[in-house]
Amino acid sequence: MSMPQQVRLVEVGPRDGLQNEKQPISVADKVRLVDDLSAAGLRYIEVGSFVSPKWVPQMAGSAEVFAAIQQQPGVTYAALAPNLKGFEGALEAGVKEVAVFAAASEGFSQKNINCSIAESLQRFEPIMAAAREHGVRVRGYISCVLGCPIDGDVAPEQVAAIARELLDSGCYEVSLGDTIGVGTAGDTRRLIEVVGRDIDRSLLAGHFHDTYGQALANIHASLLEGVAVFDSSVAGLGGCPYAKGATGNVASEDVLYLLNGLGIETGVDMAALVQAGQHICNVLGKTNGSRVARALLAREQA
Amino acid sequence: MSMPQQVRLVEVGPRDGLQNEKQPISVADKVRLVDDLSAAGLRYIEVGSFVSPKWVPQMAGSAEVFAAIQQQPGVTYAALAPNLKGFEGALEAGVKEVAVFAAASEGFSQKNINCSIAESLQRFEPIMAAAREHGVRVRGYISCVLGCPIDGDVAPEQVAAIARELLDSGCYEVSLGDTIGVGTAGDTRRLIEVVGRDIDRSLLAGHFHDTYGQALANIHASLLEGVAVFDSSVAGLGGCPYAKGATGNVASEDVLYLLNGLGIETGVDMAALVQAGQHICNVLGKTNGSRVARALLAREQA
Repeated sequence: MSMPQQVRLVEVGPRDGLQNEKQPISVADKVRLVDDLSAAGLRYIEVGSFVSPKWVPQMAGSAEVFAAIQQQPGVTYAALAPNLKGFEGALEAGVKEVAVFAAASEGFSQKNINCSIAESLQRFEPIMAAAREHGVRVRGYISCVLGCPIDGDVAPEQVAAIARELLDSGCYEVSLGDTIGVGTAGDTRRLIEVVGRDIDRSLLAGHFHDTYGQALANIHASLLEGVAVFDSSVAGLGGCPYAKGATGNVASEDVLYLLNGLGIETGVDMAALVQAGQHICNVLGKTNGSRVARALLAREQA
Repeated sequence: MSMPQQVRLVEVGPRDGLQNEKQPISVADKVRLVDDLSAAGLRYIEVGSFVSPKWVPQMAGSAEVFAAIQQQPGVTYAALAPNLKGFEGALEAGVKEVAVFAAASEGFSQKNINCSIAESLQRFEPIMAAAREHGVRVRGYISCVLGCPIDGDVAPEQVAAIARELLDSGCYEVSLGDTIGVGTAGDTRRLIEVVGRDIDRSLLAGHFHDTYGQALANIHASLLEGVAVFDSSVAGLGGCPYAKGATGNVASEDVLYLLNGLGIETGVDMAALVQAGQHICNVLGKTNGSRVARALLAREQA
């Protein structure tokens, strides 16, 4: 039962979070959010996505966001690059790290990116080649690792095989995503045991959604299995427990509270993180999705 | 890392839950709730409290509730008895098991029950004597075990000493309550380690609030420490993350989902539990506080 002494938090709020909020916000508001997050001590921020604004209006202006943020030394500012065109856009914007997305289930792969898992991995090849050429690091995501809204159960061996392919193709890390939040601590432990047979656990990250309220228990189980990188979204951006389907990024504040209580270092300042999250919630006109933020802000007002 | 194979869920919704909802409900609605919960497979239900309805109007009619419920064999129907008068009321209503309440911090003891911790333990003595005389079992609660809204930090050694006294005075089990939900998995593990030095862990229960979203992670940590009894409240009754102070009983559905995923037996049927919780939420006109219930009900409607 040894846990990592340090954890790297991958802040996905500005991309995964805002992409799944209905209302697009201005470039200036996005820039403020990213700068607030780096000021709070986050060392990895997923800033935007290079996709057509016709398909994802929430991600419009990602190049402008990259141009305007105050890039801090030691902070990774990443972008999603779903295809070669997206990668080229990211490169033009000076992005040094991109992420690619595969699904662990055929049903979700077809529905989400209109191709089989094998085809999606093939499509990454030119991106990986271009990334190597330009010295851009690539992070791999696998979605639906603990269950698929279309196919149901997903075998951990299937996740392990895709993770292996992503690493072999050049990804430096693979983030295992419970996209619909159905997984439990037991499922999580089994998944990491199976994926970890062939892959060093330092190459794995956990990406949990809180749709069923299980995210922190799953992170606790992951920590016990030696995982030391977790994706989370400030103020739980992107998540609404009432919406259908893939909702509910775990809130960064809630993860940080857990890690602080375990004595695990992150370098992130809670008060600054809570302020960053509440500010973007005010911009969006939505209730803060972090229980820790709500409790701490209520305590301040008491 | 061995976990219990079976867990006993102590359903506190009808008492701890409803007592902390603003709006009192009818005896008939309470009876329906308790009968729904036993039908869902819960084997321990805290039904009511024998206190003055002047002080706690939500608990008025507890004797009538006990008289009207369909008592099932093998199910424990318990009541809170804060003093000897309350105990006598419970006895008159035919109650076979009562609970008594102590605080782990002097500040909370004074504020909540107007006496020191030592005085509160003395006040239990006539209750314990009467209980022995009448063959009534007594369960002990300790509140604020992981932090106090008045005194701040609480030493695990203090909790251990009070737990020891409650067991010595005749309680068969002690429920450790994180009344304000501030505890983390790390705090929980340390608490159980310290309390467990002198007390068999089979005599301990965990009672977690989800104010900071940590309850399931804390239960996961408790399971790993061998705790096999947990208090929870259907639909998270009693909890509102916006209210000041002691809010946020962890939802029974969310705990059950975690336990099911770990392969731990409880005998509780999820679908029936979700229906019981949604029905009482309709009565109260409030949003269901269980993320699992919200997700499962949304899936049904999809």
